[in-house]
Amino acid sequence: MAPPRKHREALLASAVTLFRKQGYAATGLAEILAASGAPKGSLYHYFPGGKAEIGAEAVRRAGETVTATLRSLAAEATGPGDLLARYLAALAGWMRKSGYRDGCPITTTLLETVPEHAAIRDAGEAAFAAWAEVIADSARKSGVPPKRAASLARFAIAALEGALIQCRVSRNDKPLKEAAAELRALFGAAR
Amino acid sequence: MAPPRKHREALLASAVTLFRKQGYAATGLAEILAASGAPKGSLYHYFPGGKAEIGAEAVRRAGETVTATLRSLAAEATGPGDLLARYLAALAGWMRKSGYRDGCPITTTLLETVPEHAAIRDAGEAAFAAWAEVIADSARKSGVPPKRAASLARFAIAALEGALIQCRVSRNDKPLKEAAAELRALFGAAR
Repeated sequence: MAPPRKHREALLASAVTLFRKQGYAATGLAEILAASGAPKGSLYHYFPGGKAEIGAEAVRRAGETVTATLRSLAAEATGPGDLLARYLAALAGWMRKSGYRDGCPITTTLLETVPEHAAIRDAGEAAFAAWAEVIADSARKSGVPPKRAASLARFAIAALEGALIQCRVSRNDKPLKEAAAELRALFGAAR
Repeated sequence: MAPPRKHREALLASAVTLFRKQGYAATGLAEILAASGAPKGSLYHYFPGGKAEIGAEAVRRAGETVTATLRSLAAEATGPGDLLARYLAALAGWMRKSGYRDGCPITTTLLETVPEHAAIRDAGEAAFAAWAEVIADSARKSGVPPKRAASLARFAIAALEGALIQCRVSRNDKPLKEAAAELRALFGAAR
């Protein structure tokens, strides 16, 4: 009897959490398995490629969660500046709540594994592009010309990633607040 | 006879290079020792605190190198936008040359080790603050009001860190070029 599909979900959820908190290299397969509560056989059943396959799938999964969050915020926001302000405020709240132990769910893993692991890199590139597209779409709808909307959205993702690093290192949310204010002004001026 | 001081330098240089390329957790003390060419006894002679002490010292050392580079560029640059454009162009060149294997010398280690390792975190916070101060100083000299200069400089460091991540993942230097253009415009408008 094959292990139930829920074990795959549990393994992935544990991998995302552990990679975000402590990184890819420091997280062993045994730790992912123990945190998930899934039976031992399920790991190689669902991830025959081992840790690199779990890494790529965890980056893809975490990326999709962020994309879904951004889309849901975009539906409520008055424009790209408001969308980013809402998202950065949510990030700041999650980081405070975790005592600045949580950061971006994919950056640490990506920095540790590129360029050796092409599948993880590809998943990361797709995630960043999907996030930027939600922001670019919001910018276009607010009247920012398409080309400028695309480049500003990519810049916003870069600034957001960098601000998350600064927040973790300084253990306060000021870098996210400053980035939100700068980005709001930039998107406003680009209309 | 104590090992010569040059061994400490060689150990640190190897640690900085390996942490930048592959991260902190994936780098073992034996690998640092082998890459440095220093004799075995020198490692615990100079770094009795082991890997965490080397990590903190490597972040401090790499941070100081970046600060010195920024100061030297600031002396030649016409203002903060030009300073950042020169620095980001240099980063893009180094990244291309390494096949996008090199990134920020401290970010990967910081993301892997905060908040567990306070000494590494402190070294990272000091490095980011020193880099921002060079940029803020250039901005003040160009006529940007001091408070705005300080917050824009912190934002520039965040954007630069994020752009480096994007470059490594996308294996091209476009994110750094886009960030340089946005930051140049921002500092110009803030005068």
